[in-house]
Amino acid sequence: MSDLTPPVVILDKPQLADNIGAVARVMANFGLSELRLVSPRDGWPQDRAWATASGADWVLDGVRVFDSVAEAVADLNTVFSTTARPRETRMPVRTPRESMRLLYDDRASGLTVGLLFGGERAGLETTDIALTQGIVTIPIDPKHHSLNLAQAVAINAYEWRTLILDAPPPRFRAGDPPASNDLLVGMYEHLEKELDEGGFFHPPEKKPSMSQNLRVMLGRAGFSEQEVATFRGVIHALAKGRGRVLAKLAAKRGGEG
Amino acid sequence: MSDLTPPVVILDKPQLADNIGAVARVMANFGLSELRLVSPRDGWPQDRAWATASGADWVLDGVRVFDSVAEAVADLNTVFSTTARPRETRMPVRTPRESMRLLYDDRASGLTVGLLFGGERAGLETTDIALTQGIVTIPIDPKHHSLNLAQAVAINAYEWRTLILDAPPPRFRAGDPPASNDLLVGMYEHLEKELDEGGFFHPPEKKPSMSQNLRVMLGRAGFSEQEVATFRGVIHALAKGRGRVLAKLAAKRGGEG
Repeated sequence: MSDLTPPVVILDKPQLADNIGAVARVMANFGLSELRLVSPRDGWPQDRAWATASGADWVLDGVRVFDSVAEAVADLNTVFSTTARPRETRMPVRTPRESMRLLYDDRASGLTVGLLFGGERAGLETTDIALTQGIVTIPIDPKHHSLNLAQAVAINAYEWRTLILDAPPPRFRAGDPPASNDLLVGMYEHLEKELDEGGFFHPPEKKPSMSQNLRVMLGRAGFSEQEVATFRGVIHALAKGRGRVLAKLAAKRGGEG
Repeated sequence: MSDLTPPVVILDKPQLADNIGAVARVMANFGLSELRLVSPRDGWPQDRAWATASGADWVLDGVRVFDSVAEAVADLNTVFSTTARPRETRMPVRTPRESMRLLYDDRASGLTVGLLFGGERAGLETTDIALTQGIVTIPIDPKHHSLNLAQAVAINAYEWRTLILDAPPPRFRAGDPPASNDLLVGMYEHLEKELDEGGFFHPPEKKPSMSQNLRVMLGRAGFSEQEVATFRGVIHALAKGRGRVLAKLAAKRGGEG
């Protein structure tokens, strides 16, 4: 059995405290322990969660609450979004078994890993999925795909535990590890700011979907920390170039006037 | 994807209608549909089950209720007992993945297959486990092994669905298929009756555990229908022989008297 730290579980906008407790319970069943909540609907802490956790109190006692998915995944390197209906088809979509294997390999390489789950009704927003490194889809019968939140966590946690009990030799990533999500988000925001100033987002109402497509495209590359710095240098150089061109244009116009 | 009929799910003495509904829901999630209940504590049907099944009504509408595990598994060839604490160590103990693979192979060979789950508190009785062909143990963290009933069903159902989506070539059993459970139980009862008359069960209070050990021992052999008939012939021949010896003894005593 491997003693790797298991994936962090992140619940985005969970609604029912009962479900949060049920999630804590199955996490404990399969040896997971770190739970993060993004904007729980009814606030936190809630007694009902402890009542339904069936003794898995240490999971609930350690819960950390965040205001956004971006903040909740900021320190993690590899996070997969769990969704029954993968709308964002430009991201890799994998089974729980394949996904846990990748998280296992990444964890064994020293990276921090996590699993993001949507709320009971709404599921995950595509902008939040775009912050993660892939999609996990549980093989549900399309005839009846309303899977309970705790069940979705259970299936993934079970696959994780099966894997660490087997403890296969990790397949280490070639090259440098990917940057953590906060560095990536910083890079995306830098890019979007410069693009905004350059009039790239046209028409303006398309900005959200255009930004998201860029994040997904670039996210697939799995930039290392060094590569994030390099790419920010690229953004900066391009933007500065544009500034110089604009300055020249302004000067020219001034001369003409 | 394979179109094999999925395993029958049998719940022994389930307590809460909510849990029965949650079981129906996860069965539907993973394409299972036949649910049997053995002596549900609060009777059947119960509205609460439909309320928690989240629309998986067809599973609940088709429920059949039995008075004993023996009756509930009578028509099935291969049934595995799911338990977190395998007390009956003389039976094969396997993971959900290994177990579903065996059920898949048996189902592909035309056998009928099922999964037996214990009630929320008590779990399965060893006499009922002895009626089945093996034990499935979900790899739970020993630090927190109170797994919710619906979660236990979910893990197994998920493994079944993963398997039929992959549809690996079935590994057919060599030789004749095993007899159905009612034929096996008939054979056990025949044997026990004759052993009882022969004074085998001594002291009498040991009869339950002695019978059960015999069932487990013989059960592992996986007798075919023909072999059950052969073995019943063996029991009959041995018992008749004993009858003849007793008759001779009686005659001798009569002659002496």
